[in-house]
Amino acid sequence: MDIGIIGGSGYTGGELLRLLSQHPEAKLRAVTSRSKKGQKVSDTHTHLKKICDMEFEDLSAKEVASRSDIVFTAVPHGTAMAVVPELLDAGVKVIDLSADYRLKSEVFEKIYKIKHTDPRKVVYGIPELHPEVAEEKLVANPGCYPTGATLAAAPLADAGVIERVVFDSKSGISGAGAEPTATSHYPNMAENIQAYKLTSHRHGAEIVQELSSLDGGLKSISFTPHVIPSVRGILTTAHIFVKEELSEEEVSDIYRNFYQDKPFIRLIKGIPMLTGVRGSNFCDIGFEIEKGSDRIVVISAIDNLVKGASGQAIQNMNLMFGLPEASGLWTPAIAP
Amino acid sequence: MDIGIIGGSGYTGGELLRLLSQHPEAKLRAVTSRSKKGQKVSDTHTHLKKICDMEFEDLSAKEVASRSDIVFTAVPHGTAMAVVPELLDAGVKVIDLSADYRLKSEVFEKIYKIKHTDPRKVVYGIPELHPEVAEEKLVANPGCYPTGATLAAAPLADAGVIERVVFDSKSGISGAGAEPTATSHYPNMAENIQAYKLTSHRHGAEIVQELSSLDGGLKSISFTPHVIPSVRGILTTAHIFVKEELSEEEVSDIYRNFYQDKPFIRLIKGIPMLTGVRGSNFCDIGFEIEKGSDRIVVISAIDNLVKGASGQAIQNMNLMFGLPEASGLWTPAIAP
Amino acid sequence: MDIGIIGGSGYTGGELLRLLSQHPEAKLRAVTSRSKKGQKVSDTHTHLKKICDMEFEDLSAKEVASRSDIVFTAVPHGTAMAVVPELLDAGVKVIDLSADYRLKSEVFEKIYKIKHTDPRKVVYGIPELHPEVAEEKLVANPGCYPTGATLAAAPLADAGVIERVVFDSKSGISGAGAEPTATSHYPNMAENIQAYKLTSHRHGAEIVQELSSLDGGLKSISFTPHVIPSVRGILTTAHIFVKEELSEEEVSDIYRNFYQDKPFIRLIKGIPMLTGVRGSNFCDIGFEIEKGSDRIVVISAIDNLVKGASGQAIQNMNLMFGLPEASGLWTPAIAP
Amino acid sequence: MDIGIIGGSGYTGGELLRLLSQHPEAKLRAVTSRSKKGQKVSDTHTHLKKICDMEFEDLSAKEVASRSDIVFTAVPHGTAMAVVPELLDAGVKVIDLSADYRLKSEVFEKIYKIKHTDPRKVVYGIPELHPEVAEEKLVANPGCYPTGATLAAAPLADAGVIERVVFDSKSGISGAGAEPTATSHYPNMAENIQAYKLTSHRHGAEIVQELSSLDGGLKSISFTPHVIPSVRGILTTAHIFVKEELSEEEVSDIYRNFYQDKPFIRLIKGIPMLTGVRGSNFCDIGFEIEKGSDRIVVISAIDNLVKGASGQAIQNMNLMFGLPEASGLWTPAIAP
Repeated sequence: MDIGIIGGSGYTGGELLRLLSQHPEAKLRAVTSRSKKGQKVSDTHTHLKKICDMEFEDLSAKEVASRSDIVFTAVPHGTAMAVVPELLDAGVKVIDLSADYRLKSEVFEKIYKIKHTDPRKVVYGIPELHPEVAEEKLVANPGCYPTGATLAAAPLADAGVIERVVFDSKSGISGAGAEPTATSHYPNMAENIQAYKLTSHRHGAEIVQELSSLDGGLKSISFTPHVIPSVRGILTTAHIFVKEELSEEEVSDIYRNFYQDKPFIRLIKGIPMLTGVRGSNFCDIGFEIEKGSDRIVVISAIDNLVKGASGQAIQNMNLMFGLPEASGLWTPAIAP
Repeated sequence: MDIGIIGGSGYTGGELLRLLSQHPEAKLRAVTSRSKKGQKVSDTHTHLKKICDMEFEDLSAKEVASRSDIVFTAVPHGTAMAVVPELLDAGVKVIDLSADYRLKSEVFEKIYKIKHTDPRKVVYGIPELHPEVAEEKLVANPGCYPTGATLAAAPLADAGVIERVVFDSKSGISGAGAEPTATSHYPNMAENIQAYKLTSHRHGAEIVQELSSLDGGLKSISFTPHVIPSVRGILTTAHIFVKEELSEEEVSDIYRNFYQDKPFIRLIKGIPMLTGVRGSNFCDIGFEIEKGSDRIVVISAIDNLVKGASGQAIQNMNLMFGLPEASGLWTPAIAP
Repeated sequence: MDIGIIGGSGYTGGELLRLLSQHPEAKLRAVTSRSKKGQKVSDTHTHLKKICDMEFEDLSAKEVASRSDIVFTAVPHGTAMAVVPELLDAGVKVIDLSADYRLKSEVFEKIYKIKHTDPRKVVYGIPELHPEVAEEKLVANPGCYPTGATLAAAPLADAGVIERVVFDSKSGISGAGAEPTATSHYPNMAENIQAYKLTSHRHGAEIVQELSSLDGGLKSISFTPHVIPSVRGILTTAHIFVKEELSEEEVSDIYRNFYQDKPFIRLIKGIPMLTGVRGSNFCDIGFEIEKGSDRIVVISAIDNLVKGASGQAIQNMNLMFGLPEASGLWTPAIAP
Repeated sequence: MDIGIIGGSGYTGGELLRLLSQHPEAKLRAVTSRSKKGQKVSDTHTHLKKICDMEFEDLSAKEVASRSDIVFTAVPHGTAMAVVPELLDAGVKVIDLSADYRLKSEVFEKIYKIKHTDPRKVVYGIPELHPEVAEEKLVANPGCYPTGATLAAAPLADAGVIERVVFDSKSGISGAGAEPTATSHYPNMAENIQAYKLTSHRHGAEIVQELSSLDGGLKSISFTPHVIPSVRGILTTAHIFVKEELSEEEVSDIYRNFYQDKPFIRLIKGIPMLTGVRGSNFCDIGFEIEKGSDRIVVISAIDNLVKGASGQAIQNMNLMFGLPEASGLWTPAIAP
């Protein structure tokens, strides 16, 4: 399988390179970066020295397509829609890691305040919810927060029991990217926690879209993100208020049935932690029911750069090419 | 003012010592510790070398009382109720930093599963809500989580507008004490976040008690704690669902009026962070209203060992002795 | 005592403001910042809200001098020498926190590669080594690394016993300033340690200057800095090779005598740590002698922003005005 | 290749399990733990859920040997010597991760203050220095500090140019093990750095042994360890004083020639960092020559649990079985 990556200099690109280096079927053919053209990939991603000895190139979409069976677009939102049509026209499969194809175009335009130049119906690539990615030429790879939040609540949404859900998410700072900012400045982040976009984070729309498609009647979905002093990982605390009380066994059954045969979902007795998933494609899920109350607290833990981005992209790739879903991804987290 | 501390070897005791060393009216007369009897206080609290050159003593309540005008009891719950009556009988004032007197005794017994041997009506020492501490001989110093959570929501509870509130709290690990445990083991805590007691933390009852006393009709109060890779601080994200929509100005007014003339409350435009309060007695509060929704997100930030424990105790002491509320406490946070 | 600060928006400026807010004799009259002119000081230093309600002004040196008895210049190197002469001409005392006056001008020019426009003989403000600061109108406040390193080795240098010394220093990242950079980017600093300028850090010259002035024969002085995942603090590991073996008692005596009556030096049995000095002006020093070897390992710990910068500046101020050396500075570290 | 692990519940055992799960030739047959007998391995090493579904057993050495071609002993020092002879008698190969066989028995007894019950000549398993591990039945897997320190200085020691070397090492806290202690207590470790055993760490003897065997005349070798707020990694700063000045090219050539064809050594232009090696078996090495001085500063970075322990053990295993040296280990670090 010949692979191209458009936009390989950021964290998502680096993570694709790290994971693909361990994939038995993947052969990397092109990695683009306009600003780093001609530089060794391992000068930017120094951890890949001796592992990836390619150079960044500044290539057109067509040139990348000509070398590839599949192309990953790891570019800022608004940029992917300018190259994806060309890639598809050239006959390659595409997994877009930007936000461009995740939402219906009218929702996208409202939230991102950009005109969508390539509106089309694209499958949202959480493969546990959308096995139909296997049939697709273009898959929209989900945002990191929506992956953790949606996987936490989907079984109960699907069961139609949710009255109201509040997602309180805590992310590692790598989600903010490789560029230094005030937020990611060590003295501002260490020994701190930063709540942000308390009621207006763009990823909220993806969560609403996915949960509503499972339960059309579910109207009250809230989402507040935070960054914590951690490089990787998203822990989502889902405060779920149900229509009527459920027993622990009932909830367990709902999750077990919903995620049957899904290799990367691990249902945990106890409470998931970031240390259990760091560097891996697993999503750990646990829950507790509040006695004498309508609240269930569900916790999910993912690595934002793996299951929340590049790992899920490769999981999608595997399905799109008929490979085993876990091919190249069956690696444990690094702990401690 | 002569001061005694019963139980001075833990984090709360150390913080009392640190803060009292800067108090213009405080004269420390006794610090007890059974296990560290005869050792220098600064062998345990090494940061106090040259600042506090006392030794720990193993003294009876009566002995401590005989040297003091006021005694702080910084002992485990269940232990304070055994010494407080004696202290009061000896005519000294008492601030109890344990949980023993925070709840009605029947609620205490249910939650702590201990028989209460000294049931009495005691004022709950959040002085912003209970200025009547000034008249008391015994004050129950609040838990750290309840301080942050209650201060975040009290103005809206008092206004009677809350339908439902979910407190999602994130604490520094010093709240778990000076004793090493698996939870506080650096490899388990670094780059991680640990949700715990998802629906059953004991501090929940204090929050319910205080908010219910402001709004008797408020029934849906949820609380989930987490520990984050930070030594100090509690950030509380209060997801507040209101009965009817309020404008930003209305909410601002409610908070401003409620906290008028309260020196340690800082109403922030923007979002409070732990880095703004570390080492200080301030509680920073900010909020955002979700457009087209019934949700207001209020964020409060405190230092769990200061406003959440020893600083608030000294604030209570000041009021109980007719001193300026901020005496010895008017110090800024350490930042960065 | 009326005080002006030129350059108040950085970490050193913020720390001056924090510490001076607690000083019984200090009255702040002016804080300048060109870029933040007209903004509230507490918009930048958010932890100072309610503590410092001044605004940044864009004032000339003369204007600042007209309001002040003493001026702190907390500006980049190369900038101080342009304002200090004017301040001195206006009759105010000056403490310069930049590098401009720390070294002989010819050494300065060689190392900083800037022409020195105001060469003059200035006392180097480590008051434990230079009590003559008390007589001065201008004091050069030392660099953070040189403070920790020089204090660690000075007694043995003074005793003339050192053959060779290797300073291996580990600093918190706040020493690199408030501006986000790749070095201070959280994902680059967390769970990492960055050695830098392995053999060529500018602060080396200050260390050489001070130790050579104590022992003219001491020629082999090496210095390598590192930044560690900590906001504050410098731990210096001084590997000292002596001319002939010394007993533990002899070394203890040398340190005790040298630092007799120095309030901020704490000689520690055991090994100093950053947690013992954070936020305070103390310098903790401990040592161990390698058995059967010519090596003594001395460890010093300081807070880089306090004893390594703004605290030491205030200590110098106290001496220059005949106040008690520890006035406004006798505060313990914050721990845990 | 059938594999047994004696002592699988600690960090070293967990890391063997993690790495072996990715090894194409390895088949795990037994993992012992007396205290966790009957428990699932993934209850202790929660990150291995779904990856390793074995249980801990309490087996004799003979039982483990009967299922294995090779056995890893990951037990405390003093314990390995009690089981290794039995394993060897049973005809299996052994890699001992304890300290028992690293030093000559008389040196071991002096340093560890234990009688050695199985003195024999064992190859010290840094394969870059001892390719003869390939011929061995028993290999002593090196300590983590000695691996980083020795690899940093070996080329120059081998060239006979070193006069004196000071190793100042900074380790992640995972080196102290999975058991919570005061040292590893988060509030004691965060934002701190702890120097310890300033002149007497046991690992010093391994460094001396290895460098002396390369240069018999090298007498002055010093070593001081520190723990930093990082879970994994050892950065070693080697301050090397040479007999006569060397040019950058000369030093480069010495390192390049010495480490020719060693897959896991990466010679870096610039300064190695822990973030480049985390989770991987690489050792990154860089250096800088102090101008006009006899000092060269060499920096090495390893992951203490991989190249400093379990990864190196597997590297040894590969050589002992004639497999490619990097088999199962050719994985990049996780970054950011």
